[in-house]
Amino acid sequence: MVQRPRGTRDFLPDEMEKRRHYEAALRRVAKTFGFREVATPIFEESELFTLKSGPNVLDELYVFKDKGNREIALRPEMTAPTIRMFVNEMSNNPKPIKVFYFGQCFRYERPQSGRYREFFQFGAELIGNFDAESDAEIIAMASSMIKVFGLKNYIIKIGHIGILKQKVISAGVPEKCVVGVLQKLDKKLYDEARLLLLEMGVSEENIRGIFEFTETVGGVDVLSRVPGETGDYLRRVFDLLLAMGVGNVVIDLGVVRGLDYYTGIVFEVEAPTLGAEKQICGGGAYSLSELFGGERVFSTGFAVGFDRAIIAAEKEGLVCESESIKVYVLPTSKDMQIYASRVVANLRAADIVSDIEIMGRRVSKAMKYASAIGAEYVVIVGAQEIQQDSVMLRNMVSGEQKLVKISNLIEEIQ
Amino acid sequence: MVQRPRGTRDFLPDEMEKRRHYEAALRRVAKTFGFREVATPIFEESELFTLKSGPNVLDELYVFKDKGNREIALRPEMTAPTIRMFVNEMSNNPKPIKVFYFGQCFRYERPQSGRYREFFQFGAELIGNFDAESDAEIIAMASSMIKVFGLKNYIIKIGHIGILKQKVISAGVPEKCVVGVLQKLDKKLYDEARLLLLEMGVSEENIRGIFEFTETVGGVDVLSRVPGETGDYLRRVFDLLLAMGVGNVVIDLGVVRGLDYYTGIVFEVEAPTLGAEKQICGGGAYSLSELFGGERVFSTGFAVGFDRAIIAAEKEGLVCESESIKVYVLPTSKDMQIYASRVVANLRAADIVSDIEIMGRRVSKAMKYASAIGAEYVVIVGAQEIQQDSVMLRNMVSGEQKLVKISNLIEEIQ
Repeated sequence: MVQRPRGTRDFLPDEMEKRRHYEAALRRVAKTFGFREVATPIFEESELFTLKSGPNVLDELYVFKDKGNREIALRPEMTAPTIRMFVNEMSNNPKPIKVFYFGQCFRYERPQSGRYREFFQFGAELIGNFDAESDAEIIAMASSMIKVFGLKNYIIKIGHIGILKQKVISAGVPEKCVVGVLQKLDKKLYDEARLLLLEMGVSEENIRGIFEFTETVGGVDVLSRVPGETGDYLRRVFDLLLAMGVGNVVIDLGVVRGLDYYTGIVFEVEAPTLGAEKQICGGGAYSLSELFGGERVFSTGFAVGFDRAIIAAEKEGLVCESESIKVYVLPTSKDMQIYASRVVANLRAADIVSDIEIMGRRVSKAMKYASAIGAEYVVIVGAQEIQQDSVMLRNMVSGEQKLVKISNLIEEIQ
Repeated sequence: MVQRPRGTRDFLPDEMEKRRHYEAALRRVAKTFGFREVATPIFEESELFTLKSGPNVLDELYVFKDKGNREIALRPEMTAPTIRMFVNEMSNNPKPIKVFYFGQCFRYERPQSGRYREFFQFGAELIGNFDAESDAEIIAMASSMIKVFGLKNYIIKIGHIGILKQKVISAGVPEKCVVGVLQKLDKKLYDEARLLLLEMGVSEENIRGIFEFTETVGGVDVLSRVPGETGDYLRRVFDLLLAMGVGNVVIDLGVVRGLDYYTGIVFEVEAPTLGAEKQICGGGAYSLSELFGGERVFSTGFAVGFDRAIIAAEKEGLVCESESIKVYVLPTSKDMQIYASRVVANLRAADIVSDIEIMGRRVSKAMKYASAIGAEYVVIVGAQEIQQDSVMLRNMVSGEQKLVKISNLIEEIQ
């Protein structure tokens, strides 16, 4: 049997209906925030991703040469493609540019619970402004999107790339070594970070101070430990979020998000029910356009891990109702098929979800099938009824059955 | 500047909104017909496509080895993946199985007008039945989908793989040579077909008869030239389509659709406004599951060329309105940003598409921006107004402006 590729999924009807429901709801949230949708190709020149994340990223990309010998990669995320598109085609549009996107991304890594080689992201970028207002707008929208999934158990952690950077520099780490240290701290690799810091001559006391900082999480009051502009900036974001009714927010002085292209605020949303793979959303302020040949432009953005957010919703026991067949039209014999086709065509034209028996099954067997697929009504089209321009309408919930004029059928059902 | 790969497209907001509008409308049609959505991965093992279409298909596929040395191909179409999924996961479901899908497909070919390397298909498969009723159901749905695009100028051509096959066989072509001849006829390569037929000893008169047959297009009356079961079958499909109100249908005795996996009816929808690349939909009855390791199951399906259908709609001058910003919230100074944030959050929570000034622009400049993005209302949040729990509401169409209590704002706008 031909199997689907490892780490990918098929989505069967119930699952797909749920996914489309969430997708549509996320799209609506983005629209109410004044964002508009864009789309970029499934693959890009692999250079786009190495420019953003360095050559090591190739290890986890699906990279290949096309027949024209160009090195192509399936996109691992959609921020770089979106900014590439902005540089190519939107750089002269009035700012800010507010765009969102939804689609597949690909990473070649060992498949495990909640990690797939083909996964889905819903993300947004606010391009062309660098300000607490932009950051608050983006975080507020991320918060509204998490609400779409109905999650109760989640937390939004906000930090700033400048906080820990400042702390590390003031402890005596040379500017060019800062990124290396932050990467260790971001991954909570304290032993490795300690070795690195000791080599640079940082004192034990300062190291303890740094570690303690990375573990500091709390309300707006923890900002009392962050002096200067960065503290004021985060306080402003916090106030704006409060005004917009955003809850479940904490300040996390240790959030770094590994990637060194962030320039200011960084944030993550975690759903603790998911265990180790608990991050369902991540974002921050960054600048990328200059890497792709454009002018330097500041942006803020985020992406929701669509698959994980759905798993989190399921772990909380949230369900998403599917729309079943409303009417099943059942000809009592092959001779009635033409009449039945007319009836079902009228129902469908009236936007009523309708199916018709086409397998030539007998009435009793077809009724069982209608019941199995959850049809609300069965319309029985028989010779006697047709002579009276009528059909038999059976309510599958109550079991009631009555003769209805074809001209009144839609009215009876709605 | 990093460019997007050749033959692919970026979709900017106006374009994307139009595409999502059509996609949603097609999805709704499929649902009203009792079909349910499924999705398969962007790539499959390349064997899936060579099993269906032969090894030559590799020439136009994006094929590559993944890091585990598996030969992978970006999907060129979605029927094979859907049937693979059916064999793997749905083969025991009650029949018929009615599924639809929408997504990207990929072909490595020279990009030209209306032909892209990354293109979009909306398709459906009715799995597990082989009958005029199934075929009529599928063609009726294809017809309703074409109507979604608002097209007036299109034609649905219906044929049957058996007609020309029978004609060719009765002219003396050996069974094993039939496919070769049909392929030439399908491509209207009459000179090559003539040579082939002459080699097989077919008489000039019979050759003329075959060629004339392939050019026969018309109403149900042309079926008088098709004897036996196939003629009756097509007449039945025609009657069912008539009952379902499907128009713009002709019988085309020459439709073959090149692919040799079709087993019965075949059909195409053409939009003549598109010139050479005029086919916007194609489908037919087939059997594939046995190639992928399942039991033999008959199906009928089709796919709409989403990109071309949109181009056809545009050629007919059809437009699709986009939803612009309803309300632009404008703080008169930085001090008012917090109040303004509260106002905009309430509007968004009420599902009103709203944006907020975050660039710190002065009122006159921000008003120009609001006008440029087509905002219907501007809500001005100023210190004086806030003292009265009010904001200034400006109707950008009429130019009227009035003081409105914040508690009444949503009511005033809706």
